[in-house]
Amino acid sequence: MNREILLNMGKAIDLIKESSNIFIASHINPDGDNIGSSLALALALKKINKNIVVLKSDIIPIDFTFLPGINLIKEYDDKLDDIDLFITLDCGDINRLGQNKILFENAKKTINIDHHISNTNFGDINIVDSKVTATGELIYYFIKQMEIEIDKDIATNIYTAISTDTGSFKYESVSSDTHRIIADLLDIGIDKSDININLYENMSFTRMKLFIKSLTTLETFNNGKIAVIEVTQEMLKETGASLEDSEGIVSFIKKLSTVEAACILKELEKEDIKISLRTKKYLDASYICNKFDGGGHKRAAGCTIYKGIKEAKELIVKSIQEAMKV
Amino acid sequence: MNREILLNMGKAIDLIKESSNIFIASHINPDGDNIGSSLALALALKKINKNIVVLKSDIIPIDFTFLPGINLIKEYDDKLDDIDLFITLDCGDINRLGQNKILFENAKKTINIDHHISNTNFGDINIVDSKVTATGELIYYFIKQMEIEIDKDIATNIYTAISTDTGSFKYESVSSDTHRIIADLLDIGIDKSDININLYENMSFTRMKLFIKSLTTLETFNNGKIAVIEVTQEMLKETGASLEDSEGIVSFIKKLSTVEAACILKELEKEDIKISLRTKKYLDASYICNKFDGGGHKRAAGCTIYKGIKEAKELIVKSIQEAMKV
Ligand SMILES: [Mn+2]
Ligand SMILES: [Mn+2]
Repeated sequence: MNREILLNMGKAIDLIKESSNIFIASHINPDGDNIGSSLALALALKKINKNIVVLKSDIIPIDFTFLPGINLIKEYDDKLDDIDLFITLDCGDINRLGQNKILFENAKKTINIDHHISNTNFGDINIVDSKVTATGELIYYFIKQMEIEIDKDIATNIYTAISTDTGSFKYESVSSDTHRIIADLLDIGIDKSDININLYENMSFTRMKLFIKSLTTLETFNNGKIAVIEVTQEMLKETGASLEDSEGIVSFIKKLSTVEAACILKELEKEDIKISLRTKKYLDASYICNKFDGGGHKRAAGCTIYKGIKEAKELIVKSIQEAMKV
Repeated sequence: MNREILLNMGKAIDLIKESSNIFIASHINPDGDNIGSSLALALALKKINKNIVVLKSDIIPIDFTFLPGINLIKEYDDKLDDIDLFITLDCGDINRLGQNKILFENAKKTINIDHHISNTNFGDINIVDSKVTATGELIYYFIKQMEIEIDKDIATNIYTAISTDTGSFKYESVSSDTHRIIADLLDIGIDKSDININLYENMSFTRMKLFIKSLTTLETFNNGKIAVIEVTQEMLKETGASLEDSEGIVSFIKKLSTVEAACILKELEKEDIKISLRTKKYLDASYICNKFDGGGHKRAAGCTIYKGIKEAKELIVKSIQEAMKV
């Protein structure tokens, strides 16, 4: 971490010390880094007797309900106190907060902790490092900096944040420091085997059915360099699965040797297609999704196209092809 | 590592120093730990000017052909010199050497380096530690002990050995030391991103087709606690795939939340069924496969049943059910 980030961590710690009612929130469509980082920070700040509210921004995927502290996540209601400090985690911009954006705007002070390269530095204090592989990594250093002991529950959440944001320590952004953090977390005595079963071996039959069904829609372009797969409302009806059950399919088709860009189109409604894009070696997924007002990381990004699924597919494939030409 | 293992490493180093022609071999049906460990040790010993032959024991899966030093692997022929020292890696017993067993028996001295709990200590010197997650971990310590510098090529092989034997650092046997070894390897400057693409995103369309086809044979028993899948000769014909292409399918069905035991039956011939068994939390896979003269680890083991695929399935399912009752 560079000097500026360390300085900002110092300022953030001062702000936390001065604040009583602290709200934590992360992005809609929550993932493991989002929830793990939020709970790790919440559990740590509770240890120094802060009033903590972790705001629910969206439905919590069942894969993460095993996490210690999950019950800290609450829907906002009017009876909640004034917000001295609002901390956002893993949010590239303020709109990613969804319904909680308005609360952020009403907070006295704000801290923005994130690792998205596209982060707009929207907080009063910004702890943003696009070099770390997960917000969970920043949370680890931040808790250490606060001199709060990382216990088993906090460690379980940080492990989850980092593991899920790296495809189990595989991605480009993983560093030797990432592995040293994990070594430290294992020494704290987390049940890594149990965590991994919960994260990666907890698939319902329904989800397995959706997985197989959507695999049959596999289409490739440019000699297999682009692979595209669909999840339609009809497939959801047929299998009894929900859209969240499509998690992981796009990573699976990216396994094809020829593929540089793997893409899943999820039909939320007839003209509301959510797209997740993964790239392998050189294509900037974030750049491609930005064109459709989306965003993310270099190798994983997302956007929404408000067209029918066929047209959406044509548009995204065209954009990928254009990016390949450059 | 305990004192005995360290002492045996010392003895093994003395033996290596005295030997000129050193043969290295591992088990049939090679995996990443087998090949990665063999090449890492071979490359290290070449640095201290030993004549090294890495014996081919079987067809090398295409996933591993990217490994530095892969061309060191040779078929045995008569013109090869006398064997001063024969080092076996990742072999639980001498029969796992396949055709190379006879060479082992003719060697002047032997060293057995392994992490299988069932290891029979068949070497003159045995460096066996069932607590480490991969033979690659022992090779890392062994090369360090020899004070040979671990370069990028050696590190790439050790990373591969450990990553493939742990499902990318997920298994129970992974320790904080495992992650510290990996951190060290990353600092040496390996291209982890490239390695992971080669290992995990290098799937042929043929293999993808076999994957989908075999998923449709999924059967479950005992309320989903046991999941079984088949790969038949007919499926291989239909998809153009080979038996090696079935790698990874059993791990995939183990992802089902209800599953404790996941099992794949591969039809080598009409009455020659190779079985791979994976267990999740408590069942001893090695114990179950031992009954059919197979072996392995607690959570991953294999055996062969010389019956038709239907009967083989009944037999293995019955054995799993019996083990579940205990
Ligand atoms: Mn993240
Ligand atoms: Mn092994």
